[in-house]
Amino acid sequence: MMQTQTITGRQIAYDGRQLAPHWIYRQFDILGDAVVAFIGPCRVDINEMVDIEDVKSDAPIFSPMMLHVIAEFFTGDLHLTVYRQRLLITIAKEILELHTEHDITRMGDDLYVPRIDNRPGKLSVSIATASTTSTLIHTGFNILTDGTPVPTVGLDELGIDPVAFADELLQRYADETHDIWQARCKVRAVSE
Amino acid sequence: MMQTQTITGRQIAYDGRQLAPHWIYRQFDILGDAVVAFIGPCRVDINEMVDIEDVKSDAPIFSPMMLHVIAEFFTGDLHLTVYRQRLLITIAKEILELHTEHDITRMGDDLYVPRIDNRPGKLSVSIATASTTSTLIHTGFNILTDGTPVPTVGLDELGIDPVAFADELLQRYADETHDIWQARCKVRAVSE
Amino acid sequence: MMQTQTITGRQIAYDGRQLAPHWIYRQFDILGDAVVAFIGPCRVDINEMVDIEDVKSDAPIFSPMMLHVIAEFFTGDLHLTVYRQRLLITIAKEILELHTEHDITRMGDDLYVPRIDNRPGKLSVSIATASTTSTLIHTGFNILTDGTPVPTVGLDELGIDPVAFADELLQRYADETHDIWQARCKVRAVSE
Amino acid sequence: MMQTQTITGRQIAYDGRQLAPHWIYRQFDILGDAVVAFIGPCRVDINEMVDIEDVKSDAPIFSPMMLHVIAEFFTGDLHLTVYRQRLLITIAKEILELHTEHDITRMGDDLYVPRIDNRPGKLSVSIATASTTSTLIHTGFNILTDGTPVPTVGLDELGIDPVAFADELLQRYADETHDIWQARCKVRAVSE
Amino acid sequence: MMQTQTITGRQIAYDGRQLAPHWIYRQFDILGDAVVAFIGPCRVDINEMVDIEDVKSDAPIFSPMMLHVIAEFFTGDLHLTVYRQRLLITIAKEILELHTEHDITRMGDDLYVPRIDNRPGKLSVSIATASTTSTLIHTGFNILTDGTPVPTVGLDELGIDPVAFADELLQRYADETHDIWQARCKVRAVSE
Amino acid sequence: MMQTQTITGRQIAYDGRQLAPHWIYRQFDILGDAVVAFIGPCRVDINEMVDIEDVKSDAPIFSPMMLHVIAEFFTGDLHLTVYRQRLLITIAKEILELHTEHDITRMGDDLYVPRIDNRPGKLSVSIATASTTSTLIHTGFNILTDGTPVPTVGLDELGIDPVAFADELLQRYADETHDIWQARCKVRAVSE
Repeated sequence: MMQTQTITGRQIAYDGRQLAPHWIYRQFDILGDAVVAFIGPCRVDINEMVDIEDVKSDAPIFSPMMLHVIAEFFTGDLHLTVYRQRLLITIAKEILELHTEHDITRMGDDLYVPRIDNRPGKLSVSIATASTTSTLIHTGFNILTDGTPVPTVGLDELGIDPVAFADELLQRYADETHDIWQARCKVRAVSE
Repeated sequence: MMQTQTITGRQIAYDGRQLAPHWIYRQFDILGDAVVAFIGPCRVDINEMVDIEDVKSDAPIFSPMMLHVIAEFFTGDLHLTVYRQRLLITIAKEILELHTEHDITRMGDDLYVPRIDNRPGKLSVSIATASTTSTLIHTGFNILTDGTPVPTVGLDELGIDPVAFADELLQRYADETHDIWQARCKVRAVSE
Repeated sequence: MMQTQTITGRQIAYDGRQLAPHWIYRQFDILGDAVVAFIGPCRVDINEMVDIEDVKSDAPIFSPMMLHVIAEFFTGDLHLTVYRQRLLITIAKEILELHTEHDITRMGDDLYVPRIDNRPGKLSVSIATASTTSTLIHTGFNILTDGTPVPTVGLDELGIDPVAFADELLQRYADETHDIWQARCKVRAVSE
Repeated sequence: MMQTQTITGRQIAYDGRQLAPHWIYRQFDILGDAVVAFIGPCRVDINEMVDIEDVKSDAPIFSPMMLHVIAEFFTGDLHLTVYRQRLLITIAKEILELHTEHDITRMGDDLYVPRIDNRPGKLSVSIATASTTSTLIHTGFNILTDGTPVPTVGLDELGIDPVAFADELLQRYADETHDIWQARCKVRAVSE
Repeated sequence: MMQTQTITGRQIAYDGRQLAPHWIYRQFDILGDAVVAFIGPCRVDINEMVDIEDVKSDAPIFSPMMLHVIAEFFTGDLHLTVYRQRLLITIAKEILELHTEHDITRMGDDLYVPRIDNRPGKLSVSIATASTTSTLIHTGFNILTDGTPVPTVGLDELGIDPVAFADELLQRYADETHDIWQARCKVRAVSE
Repeated sequence: MMQTQTITGRQIAYDGRQLAPHWIYRQFDILGDAVVAFIGPCRVDINEMVDIEDVKSDAPIFSPMMLHVIAEFFTGDLHLTVYRQRLLITIAKEILELHTEHDITRMGDDLYVPRIDNRPGKLSVSIATASTTSTLIHTGFNILTDGTPVPTVGLDELGIDPVAFADELLQRYADETHDIWQARCKVRAVSE
C-alpha cells in the first residue's frame, strides 16, 4: 500500500529538483512507495526539465501557485509508471467532476477546463521519469494562473480547495493502486 | 502500435475460451499486440472463469448480448496489463460521456450508469490475466440486459451504437497506448 | 508486508497439490503475498514432485507428521524465490538455536540435527517453484519421524512446540522480508 | 559460477569509492560476477555513503582495520541483491560459529557478538546498492576496533584469522550462489 | 558457460516432444543452460507444433534424417531467445562456409543452399519457444532429404560430417554466448 | 518497427558523445527505437570510451572517415542489445558478401577482410552499452584507413558505396528485428 502525505502549513517551491529519487524520503522520512502533495509556486528552467520534447521546443514551466503531487515507486519500470501517471490524472479528473459543474477533458496526461473566454484552459502539467533505483511522477495543478505562458485555469477559480482535493486524490490513488495489485493477484493463468 | 479490428457481420459468443493466448492470431490472422471487438452473447461458466474471487463466490457471468473487447500484449507483465485494462475502461467512459447525457461512474474496472429505478446499473465486466507468453484483457459491455444476474444497463438503452462505439474505443485505445509509449521514450533520467 | 497465518485446530495433509498458485487464497481467503503454516502428515508421490532431481532418483517424500509452511509471492522470479527460501530456512535455524541446545546445521535448504545415534538427522524438506503468475515455497519440518525413508529428527524430540515455532517463524519471516524491501528502497545508486 | 579472490600482501583502504561498478574488473582484471576480499582501514565520509538512512542520521563509518568483501552481480536487480547480501552475512555467521565459541547474532545484515562488558558488539557493516549496469555489496568485518564510533568487536579478539576466514567465506558463498542457481533450474513449474 | 554435448552411437527420433523444459536434464543429466546435438529422423505432427503459423497452414515437418540441436536457457525471455536462435543459425552458416564451397543463404532462422536443379534447397528448420521456467530452441539440419515436403538439401550431399559439424557448432555457440555475456559485463553506462 | 534514417549531405564527426540516450531524438527528431547512419571522421579519446577493456589497454579509436551506425532501443536490457549488435554485424557481413568478392570474417562484433599484404584488416568497430532509460549500439565501418592504429580495410577499397550500403543495412536490420519480434509472438508455450 502506497504511503500518502499532504504537506500543509508551509509552501514548497517546485523547480524540478524535487523530481529526484529519495526526495520524499529525505524530506518527509517516508521510505518506500509513496505519494505526497504540497503547495507552492512552480518554475522549472530548461536545464532542469526532463521532458526532452519541452527542452527541444524551449518551453519552460511556470505557475504562480500550484498543488504539486510527487510519487515515487520502487517496483516496475518507466513504461508502467507512465500508466500510473495516467491513472493519477484520471482519478483527479473524476474527483473534480464530483465537485464542480465544469467540463473536464483529459488529453493524455493533461487536464483542460473551458475558460470564460471559451478557450480550453490547461489545468495541469505532468511528467514521469526514471532513476537508477526508482520511477517518479510529478503532477502540478494550477491554483492561481497569473503570468502562465499558456492559457490556463486554476483550482481557485473552479472553487476547489487544494488541500481537500489533495487528500482525496492521494487516498483514492493509494486505494486504486492497491486494488490494481490485488486484481493482478487474484486471477488464474490461461493457456491455449 | 497496437493493431485493431472490429468484427462486423457476424456474432461470436463469448464463453471464456476466447481469453486465450493467440486466439486473436488464430481467428483473425493478426499477429502481435492487438485489440479486437465483436458482438455476441456472453455466458462464462465457473470452470472457465479466471477471476478466482468470482469462482469462490460462485458468480457466473451472463448477458444476452454484449460488445466484447479482447486485447493481447506480448510485452510487459500482468501488473502492467491491469493498468492497461483500467485505461481501456477510462477511455470507454470518456467516449460514452461524449455521446450520452447519462452519468457514468467508474469503480475500478467496472462502469455503472444509474437505471430508471435509480439503482446503479452495471454496464461492463472486465478481467485481465496472463499466459506463459502474453497477457490478455477481456472487457464486455452489455448491449441488452434481459436475464442478467445483477442490475445492469446496456448500450442499447443508452442510445449507443455498439459498432461505432467499438471503432472509436479501439482507435483511441491504440492511440493512447502508443502515446504512453512515446511518453516513456522522451524523458531523460534523473538522479539524486 | 507479507500476510501470515498459522492454521490451528485441524490437520491438513500435504501431498504436493498444496504447492499451487492461489492455494492460500482459495483455502484461507488471503490474497497477495502470504505465508501460512499448518500441521499434518506428508506423503508426496513421484508424480506430484516438482524437484526433478528427486523424480530422477525416485525419492518420494514421507513423514508421519510435519509442520508445513507454504509461501506464495506475486513479485520476483524463481531465482529470487530460492533466495527467499534460503532466508526462511536461515530464520528457522536461528529460532531453533534460541530454543534448544542442539546443534543445527544448514546445508543449502535443509536443516540437520545430530541424532542420538550421532548420525545427522534431517529435520526438514524444502522446495521452491514457479507458476505462470507467482512463485511458491514449501518447507516441511518433521514433528514425528516414524517410518521416514532417511534418518530424521523431529521437532517433538527437540522439545519444540510446532505452533509456537510456526508463529515465531512466520512473524520473523514477514518482518525480515519487509526489512529487506526497505533496505532496497533506502540506498542511492552508484556510478563509476 | 562467481569468481573469487582474496587479496593478500597489501592493504587497500576502503572509503566508499570501491563500491562502484567495474571496480573489481579495473583493479583485479576479473570480469563478470565476482566477490573479492581485502584488508585495510575503513573511513566512509557522509558524501560517499549510499545508505540514506545513515546520511540522514549523520553516521559516518570508521574502523581502524577491516576485512572487506566487495561483490558485483550483472544479473538480477537490487531486491535480489539484498537477499544475496543476507546470504553472505548468514554464511559468515555460520563459518564464525564453526571456529569460535562466541555467540553470534544476526540482526538483518549485521552481526553482533557479546563484548567483555556484556554489551553487544557490532562485528560488521554492510550495504547493497545498484548501478545502471550491475548491483553491488560491501561488507566489512572489524579486525581491530580502536576508535570505532559504536561498541564493536573484531575478528582479532575472536581469534579469527582474517585471510583464512575470507577464503572460506568467498568459497562457500560462490558455492551456495551456484547451488541456488541449480535449485532454480531443476524444478518443474506448477499450475492450479 | 553453456554446457554442450553431442550424442553419438545412437539415434533419437525428434517428434516435437523433445522441445520441452528439462528434457536435456532428464535425458542427459545436464542441469542448467545447455545445448545438445543428436541424430535421428524428424516427424512433427500438427498437434505437437509450436509455430502457430505452421499450424494454421497445416505444414507438418518431416525429414528422414536430421542433425538436431536442442538448447535450453534459464535466463532471459523469449525475445532474447529468438536472438539466440538467430546467432545459432549464423554460426552454423559460418561453419558450413568454412567447409564447403556451396553458397549458403540465411533467411531469418532458415538456411538455404542452391540445389542441382538450381532451386533453393532448405537445409534447416528452427523454432524458439518458452516454458514457464525456461526458453528453448530446436534447430534441425537435414542429413538426408528423401520424402521431405519442400525442396531441401542435406548435409550428406554437402559433404559435411554431421558429428564433426555438431561438435564445432556447439563449441562455437557456447563460446560466443559466453563472449556476448562478457561484452555485456565490460562496458560502463552512458548518460545524457 | 524500428525507424531508420541515413543522414546524407553533411558529415558528423564521431567522438563517443553521440553514444548517448536521446541523441537520435535530439538530433533528428526521431522518437523511440531507431537506427541512424551518417558519415564522418572518428576519434574517441580514452575518457569517452565505454569499453573498459579498451580503457585498461589504453587503446583509443581513430579513423579518418567512417560510416557510423547508432541504434537506440527502449525495450530490453544490455544483454539483449549485445545480441542485437551481433545481428547488425551479421547482416552487414551478409550484405557485403553480396556486393564484393572479398572474404569477410566475423569475429564476435568485428568484421575482418584480408588486406593486400595478406594480413587481416579490421573493417569495423562496435560497442553496445546502456543508459538508465535505454540501450545503445555504435558500429563504425572504415571508409578510409589512413593513420588507423591497427591494420584496417575500408569500404572504399572494397568498392562499396557507403550510403547505399547504409540504406540496405538499416532497412534489412529494421526488417529482421521486426521479424524476430513476430517470431517471438507466433509460438505457443511448451510444458513438461
